[in-house]
Amino acid sequence: MSAVPVQPAAAPTELCPVAFQDFHSPEPFPLELGGVLPELTLRYETYGTLLPDKSNAILVPHALSGDHHVAGRYRPDDVKPGWWDVFVGPGKAIDTDRFFVIGVNCIGGCKGSTGPLSVDPRTGCRFGGFFPEITLGDIVRAQRMVVRHLGIAKLHAVVGGSMGGMQALLWCADYPREVGRIAVLAAGLSQSPMAIALNAVSRACVEKDPYFRGGHYEPGEGPATGLAVGRMLAHISYLSSAAFDQKFGRAKVPGAQPGDPVHWQVESYLDHQGEAFVKRFDANSWLRITRAVDRFDMTARAAAGSLFQGDGPDVLAIGFSSDWLYPTSELRMLLAAATAVGVNAAYHEVITDAGHDGFLLPDTGLSVRLHAFLG
Amino acid sequence: MSAVPVQPAAAPTELCPVAFQDFHSPEPFPLELGGVLPELTLRYETYGTLLPDKSNAILVPHALSGDHHVAGRYRPDDVKPGWWDVFVGPGKAIDTDRFFVIGVNCIGGCKGSTGPLSVDPRTGCRFGGFFPEITLGDIVRAQRMVVRHLGIAKLHAVVGGSMGGMQALLWCADYPREVGRIAVLAAGLSQSPMAIALNAVSRACVEKDPYFRGGHYEPGEGPATGLAVGRMLAHISYLSSAAFDQKFGRAKVPGAQPGDPVHWQVESYLDHQGEAFVKRFDANSWLRITRAVDRFDMTARAAAGSLFQGDGPDVLAIGFSSDWLYPTSELRMLLAAATAVGVNAAYHEVITDAGHDGFLLPDTGLSVRLHAFLG
Repeated sequence: MSAVPVQPAAAPTELCPVAFQDFHSPEPFPLELGGVLPELTLRYETYGTLLPDKSNAILVPHALSGDHHVAGRYRPDDVKPGWWDVFVGPGKAIDTDRFFVIGVNCIGGCKGSTGPLSVDPRTGCRFGGFFPEITLGDIVRAQRMVVRHLGIAKLHAVVGGSMGGMQALLWCADYPREVGRIAVLAAGLSQSPMAIALNAVSRACVEKDPYFRGGHYEPGEGPATGLAVGRMLAHISYLSSAAFDQKFGRAKVPGAQPGDPVHWQVESYLDHQGEAFVKRFDANSWLRITRAVDRFDMTARAAAGSLFQGDGPDVLAIGFSSDWLYPTSELRMLLAAATAVGVNAAYHEVITDAGHDGFLLPDTGLSVRLHAFLG
Repeated sequence: MSAVPVQPAAAPTELCPVAFQDFHSPEPFPLELGGVLPELTLRYETYGTLLPDKSNAILVPHALSGDHHVAGRYRPDDVKPGWWDVFVGPGKAIDTDRFFVIGVNCIGGCKGSTGPLSVDPRTGCRFGGFFPEITLGDIVRAQRMVVRHLGIAKLHAVVGGSMGGMQALLWCADYPREVGRIAVLAAGLSQSPMAIALNAVSRACVEKDPYFRGGHYEPGEGPATGLAVGRMLAHISYLSSAAFDQKFGRAKVPGAQPGDPVHWQVESYLDHQGEAFVKRFDANSWLRITRAVDRFDMTARAAAGSLFQGDGPDVLAIGFSSDWLYPTSELRMLLAAATAVGVNAAYHEVITDAGHDGFLLPDTGLSVRLHAFLG
């Protein structure tokens, strides 16, 4: 196993320049559902300084379409910083002046870790449609290899939103002695049937696109239309009705005629979101990861006492009032399951019109609460 | 103008046998957005007996994918009765022993009234993609020709759910002296931006299907896949999260493997709904009608006092507690707008987990309320 910096760090600036690294394991990585990855690459990024006793590490697993680039900019003129830059950085809620923060691209993804776009060393060809089915448990188990590689025996915390929150719960369940506390934002104990339904339609868009070809497409020749439309749908579920009112209302695209396919501002916005997504995401990854999320179900383990344990990690559950994909009721259920077995747990609700995406937006109240929880 | 029974009535049974009729107008029908239909056919169905003074007629406009077949069976062995048979029939909430009930297929539809599948007499070819854009105002204005044809100067009531409720509001606004009362179920004063967004994605599924060809397809050779997936999405918006929990939970299709496109029961259900819809609906109709619904906005007229008027129709607004497509807040807003100008108006809330589709399901409380409102 080796860690190779594959990208030189940008010239130092005040903007927290970062570089990603690749961790490579030549060992076969068996998967929960029976498949195996013949080898493993995990792309990760770190921020801040690891203390000599390695006690200050916080892992921030990403959501469905996120990646290892959690915070900072590679270059000062990058248009956007990492996806959670509002919460992660010097003096921020997750303070990189005090903590060593780790972001890891999930396996099955398409941002550098082993996924459908990777070459299968057994065949010399990309996995594509042959990439095996994965679970969030697999994703966390792979993530942990990076943590161990960095010499960290116990994480100070795992903090994640949406699919990242599910991973935090899996750390709590599978490695309770290796995490001090978890913060779960905008997620629940299981993927709800309606959330599965939304993902199912999104997948149908991809799988029924004639360019999908069972996943056996060349990069750039895949189901671009289906993936774009599937993402349009997913995007609706990340907002709230109030957010749609405020962002777009019933405004029309200037000059649009009644029969035009893109007539309303909200249509134009979603259309743009779909097009942009195709440029940065792979359809096979979308299928593998949404299916992994749909499989997520810890209700039985919560009931059996193998999710939360009294001497396990502390828990902070954070709900967003207008999130209808992972409603606050799910986070309160999570809190109830934790407190029922004596876990030091708390619930914080962010009152917002932003919907599920609320966890990505700046919020002073949440920052203060998260900062306090991390100690 | 003529009314020709095009289908012989089924043999009399206790099941309220019905037959549809076609009303034909050879006159050009100008449309609100500038187009024109060179002639007009309206398919309609009636139940019960019109009193000699023609004072007992109730119009029941249908929702997006409904039609003129509101109640009863054409033949005793029909698998399903009309779409609102639970509310319309002898002794039911809309009692056909007392009232003469009218259902009319909307223009732009595909169940017999002039729509994209109709032949344009100017060209001898089907309208297809050339069918003009319509509004719900056009649909109501065409509907009214059937009402006039039946010799009815004033309807006792217009009762409609979802898009049917919007049409009831248009009757109230455009023909206030021709309606005694309106009942609006599961609709609001305007189509919300999030509801537009959902329709937009549904339309994108159709329009981006390579078989769509700008709407210029032969029947049976159209965008079947896109329409099926678009309907899958629409179907999600008709239910609630609780309904998904109760109907499907996290159950898997027996024997389904992890990577199968149809793995969950809810996926199988939606897949079936999409496939079934393609057999009974036309993609161009779907586009025309969803765009007409998206255009629906009576907020300005409500504010200007030209929607509700003190001496206009009585109003009953009926909301369904778990409807997130047309939330109860929209019906309460409708009530507020009506009462503000002195209309005799009331609001009734049905507590249900059924979501938007709640208005199609039996509910004793609602039946009693509706029955009382109709007098």
